[in-house]
Amino acid sequence: MPKSLVTGGAGFMGSHVAECLLKMRHEVVVMDDLSGGFRENVPAKAIFVQGSVMDHKLIDRLFEQHSFDYVYHLAAYAAEGLSHFIKRFNYNNNLIGSVNLVNAAVNYEVKCFVFTSSIAVYGSGQSPLSEEMIPIPEDSYGIAKLAVEQELRVTHEMFGLDYIVFRPHNVYGERQNIGDRYRNVVGIFMNQALRTEPMTIFGDGTQQRAFTHIDDVAPIIASSVEVPAGRNHVFNVGADTPHTVNELANVVAQTMKVPLNIAHLDPRNEVKIAFSDHSKAERVFGARKKTSLQEGVAAMAAWVRDHGARESSVFEDIEIMKNMPPSWAKVAKVHV
Amino acid sequence: MPKSLVTGGAGFMGSHVAECLLKMRHEVVVMDDLSGGFRENVPAKAIFVQGSVMDHKLIDRLFEQHSFDYVYHLAAYAAEGLSHFIKRFNYNNNLIGSVNLVNAAVNYEVKCFVFTSSIAVYGSGQSPLSEEMIPIPEDSYGIAKLAVEQELRVTHEMFGLDYIVFRPHNVYGERQNIGDRYRNVVGIFMNQALRTEPMTIFGDGTQQRAFTHIDDVAPIIASSVEVPAGRNHVFNVGADTPHTVNELANVVAQTMKVPLNIAHLDPRNEVKIAFSDHSKAERVFGARKKTSLQEGVAAMAAWVRDHGARESSVFEDIEIMKNMPPSWAKVAKVHV
Repeated sequence: MPKSLVTGGAGFMGSHVAECLLKMRHEVVVMDDLSGGFRENVPAKAIFVQGSVMDHKLIDRLFEQHSFDYVYHLAAYAAEGLSHFIKRFNYNNNLIGSVNLVNAAVNYEVKCFVFTSSIAVYGSGQSPLSEEMIPIPEDSYGIAKLAVEQELRVTHEMFGLDYIVFRPHNVYGERQNIGDRYRNVVGIFMNQALRTEPMTIFGDGTQQRAFTHIDDVAPIIASSVEVPAGRNHVFNVGADTPHTVNELANVVAQTMKVPLNIAHLDPRNEVKIAFSDHSKAERVFGARKKTSLQEGVAAMAAWVRDHGARESSVFEDIEIMKNMPPSWAKVAKVHV
Repeated sequence: MPKSLVTGGAGFMGSHVAECLLKMRHEVVVMDDLSGGFRENVPAKAIFVQGSVMDHKLIDRLFEQHSFDYVYHLAAYAAEGLSHFIKRFNYNNNLIGSVNLVNAAVNYEVKCFVFTSSIAVYGSGQSPLSEEMIPIPEDSYGIAKLAVEQELRVTHEMFGLDYIVFRPHNVYGERQNIGDRYRNVVGIFMNQALRTEPMTIFGDGTQQRAFTHIDDVAPIIASSVEVPAGRNHVFNVGADTPHTVNELANVVAQTMKVPLNIAHLDPRNEVKIAFSDHSKAERVFGARKKTSLQEGVAAMAAWVRDHGARESSVFEDIEIMKNMPPSWAKVAKVHV
């Protein structure tokens, strides 16, 4: 019975990957600091350890105790747009935390380290984004993700640790934290619909993303370690079809049966069109589920209706206030 | 009178840059944690603050107090080969420390942020290394340096902070810490010559580097902020002519009047030939001093003879012992 560690397993994507691994009959240990995740997201059959990937002593104890075969590292603070304003926090969470796990994976001879990077590494690259492109990240979040990818490459060369990198693409679905005001536009819209507030869009809403339902990616990530050809490669993973943010708002309003009510905010510094080429992942991992936006939003909305709206959380430790979007700045708390 | 902060100003390169800035009539504050530098390296006219770039509260206080016009960020733990084994330490020192300074530079409206990166960002790229090449670093040190370069680029785009990045090249000279066993081959050879020990070379010694005397780079770095065309660009800086490590050993032995006595160790994972194209820096900053290897080694050797050998220091906090060169491993202390 293979033993796997899932970091961020109380979060959205992590809990789905953990569930897939349990179906594959892995023993699963979930590690999560519950900063963005929820205890109830952790599958009942998984062992849960509350703690941060920044706590390298805890990580060493955990690896010593469990002799993991595989590490699935999904823990991250994934608010890309906010990362400009919380640079130190971003690098501590997303890079130093990852490095702590890489160290332990080398020292305790893990068989494969699966890492969820992001299409943020591509920056303003021309879509469709392909793995052969030179990544030029445009924000601190993307820089940290790219540094971890590079760290895995050199660690493989130096120490032989196998890795698989996934660059997922605007993933949404059941168990997503819809109370986070800085990320996950599908969740933000649903939360606003539930609270009968207008849906807030930065700019005119014509920016395009290929919103991806979690069921189309979690099984690929979980089972990737069983495919030898995937080792030591980077893969885009997600939906193929881009939609505008306006279209998404429309689908959410229809699904949740609220009138379409959009508030356009000032545009922010973001990539206009982003969708990925997934031919490499299909070639190596085979055909995947392709949930339509309507189906995916319907599945998530059903879950959201059962679970209600959450209070929007505020990030407490802003490092730079300059040039922050006013809708964030008015609730931001400055780091002291 | 412009006011400049020099981090790492008690170290080798930092102290020379601080000296150049004082000649340029800047007010200079040196910040250094003395982990690799020495109090006596700090020029007498500079204000000295002992502290680490990882201490962001100290940095905030310092920027608040001094309203710096320019930041020269030279503090780093620059043992490239060792960085595989001290990944967390490397990223904390070299990336998080830099980010703390970038945050403060944005918040306190610094006019230009000068950063010494490294040719380590090029990895095994084909020499002559040019700034147009796609950097593919091969170790954690190079990854951290590249991440800081990228951070400066996106910070300029987002917040307007001007920057200049230098990628220096195997710099040696007076005030270099010759007691550090992990870096600075010129210093290591001189220390071994003083102690009448054999000069240790990883592999056959045919690896080539364009060893660069400090006088050829410190003045360019210091005066770069006065050249508008240099803003928001990356520059190689250093000597043009590559020499083998065996040649260097020979020059050091002759200069220090000891018999040539080389101990070849097992090769380590390193780039075989590395030298840079400096045409971009010449175009923007003009002609520079070009000290020959013989002249430069003679100048440094005179200083070393006056200052004697230092006890070799041992890095105390190794994170990964696997695959460490045996000459390092036998004295290494494992992180607990």
